[in-house]
Amino acid sequence: MQNHTITIAPRYAETDKGGVVHHSVYPVWFEMGRTELLRADGIAYKDLEARGIFFVVAEMRIKFRRPAFYDEELLLETTCSNITAGKVEHTYRLTRRGTGVLLAEGSSVLACVNAEGKVRRVPEFIYPKEPTKKRQAAEA
Amino acid sequence: MQNHTITIAPRYAETDKGGVVHHSVYPVWFEMGRTELLRADGIAYKDLEARGIFFVVAEMRIKFRRPAFYDEELLLETTCSNITAGKVEHTYRLTRRGTGVLLAEGSSVLACVNAEGKVRRVPEFIYPKEPTKKRQAAEA
Amino acid sequence: MQNHTITIAPRYAETDKGGVVHHSVYPVWFEMGRTELLRADGIAYKDLEARGIFFVVAEMRIKFRRPAFYDEELLLETTCSNITAGKVEHTYRLTRRGTGVLLAEGSSVLACVNAEGKVRRVPEFIYPKEPTKKRQAAEA
Amino acid sequence: MQNHTITIAPRYAETDKGGVVHHSVYPVWFEMGRTELLRADGIAYKDLEARGIFFVVAEMRIKFRRPAFYDEELLLETTCSNITAGKVEHTYRLTRRGTGVLLAEGSSVLACVNAEGKVRRVPEFIYPKEPTKKRQAAEA
Repeated sequence: MQNHTITIAPRYAETDKGGVVHHSVYPVWFEMGRTELLRADGIAYKDLEARGIFFVVAEMRIKFRRPAFYDEELLLETTCSNITAGKVEHTYRLTRRGTGVLLAEGSSVLACVNAEGKVRRVPEFIYPKEPTKKRQAAEA
Repeated sequence: MQNHTITIAPRYAETDKGGVVHHSVYPVWFEMGRTELLRADGIAYKDLEARGIFFVVAEMRIKFRRPAFYDEELLLETTCSNITAGKVEHTYRLTRRGTGVLLAEGSSVLACVNAEGKVRRVPEFIYPKEPTKKRQAAEA
Repeated sequence: MQNHTITIAPRYAETDKGGVVHHSVYPVWFEMGRTELLRADGIAYKDLEARGIFFVVAEMRIKFRRPAFYDEELLLETTCSNITAGKVEHTYRLTRRGTGVLLAEGSSVLACVNAEGKVRRVPEFIYPKEPTKKRQAAEA
Repeated sequence: MQNHTITIAPRYAETDKGGVVHHSVYPVWFEMGRTELLRADGIAYKDLEARGIFFVVAEMRIKFRRPAFYDEELLLETTCSNITAGKVEHTYRLTRRGTGVLLAEGSSVLACVNAEGKVRRVPEFIYPKEPTKKRQAAEA
């Protein structure tokens, strides 16, 4: 699955004195979106970490179009836009339920690291190794 | 040292739509107060954790007297009120700098656990073992 | 309704380097519990604020019994334990779904304030005014 | 002043179970950097809001180079890179004190809004109006 949508109701503690959700909350929601996209594919992220596979955010971009308010109903659509042996990319679209008004868009790049924080290859069950010519020949 | 005061300037992200600091931020500040009280005694809490000694909050009480506002100057006084082999207790007083108006008071009880989360004795350099009668006799 | 239970899945951002949910997150969850208890009674808290009725936390107590972990399934039971003209009291029980193990218990006292932060009476639709003797006599 | 550096010590509550500072904390720090850059120019952001002038984040980009750890000493350099009548742009560099190792870089675009959230011109004391030809002629 490349695409998954979750529902979000902004918490009171997520708002600021400007009366809207603080912008630092969006990366937290995006992370929830990635977790549920992964779960929809049958993988619990906590199980990955238990096996020493950590995904860390290497880059994040967010465009804040319109404010989000306390206790309204939002939809966050998370799309896995690209996977390579070295990184996993996602895009995000946050909209207001019902009207569909776009509140924010974003993208992120994740790197894969081991328990010591060293960069490692994205696991094969997420990004399968391509068969080598030799193996292709043997299989032919 | 039993007592230490730090200065706090509430961050924008710590406020909520009510225009004041959200009450969930106070435990974060209290933790900062404990860290600096410990450091004033020559101990960095991160060094304790590196040695497998963790202090976890077992109980917390807070009375919120008056709201705290964005970017004002506050004083947090942290007092270590009691130490036993099993727990460390603190009290907290948050006041407005200048006027001294009391904004909040609190108390907490910490337990000591090891890296696996099992309860252990408070380290001797924090709570010295009492000499046994035998040792007392030998020393006499 | 005096009592309501919500499901909580701890977010990654809610954990700390100790590997468990940071204790400052519990007041955020308790607030969510109160919001849903109120909604189960047909009242949206945001509507109260829109009408200039704010409930602020005057006191909070929490006992942390066992740690909560990332992405596990928790149940938070919120009980409205007492209402007077001056305050609303709640108690909280956080348990692990399935086993029912108790992770934390707490209580809070809310005061009611207006948009300027001045203490006001708890609204009549939440705490009805008692009839005065005069009115009681008239009604008799 | 175009440039200002603040010192940051990551709080315990800002770390996550991966043992490092959660990426959602960086926007909070960047905001602190902007506030202090503004203050170094003699302007308290809270005074702007009190006058109905709000700056909201319209866009943010962050590259996370290396993790930040609990209670280490970091330097955040905030630069005001561009101001127009419609927006204010900043860049950020987060480094480890002493070694100068780069932990993160970022940029943001702020828009200016009034108390109702409507976009307005950046105030003249921040972005002076250019003299019109007429005034220029009069001054010549």
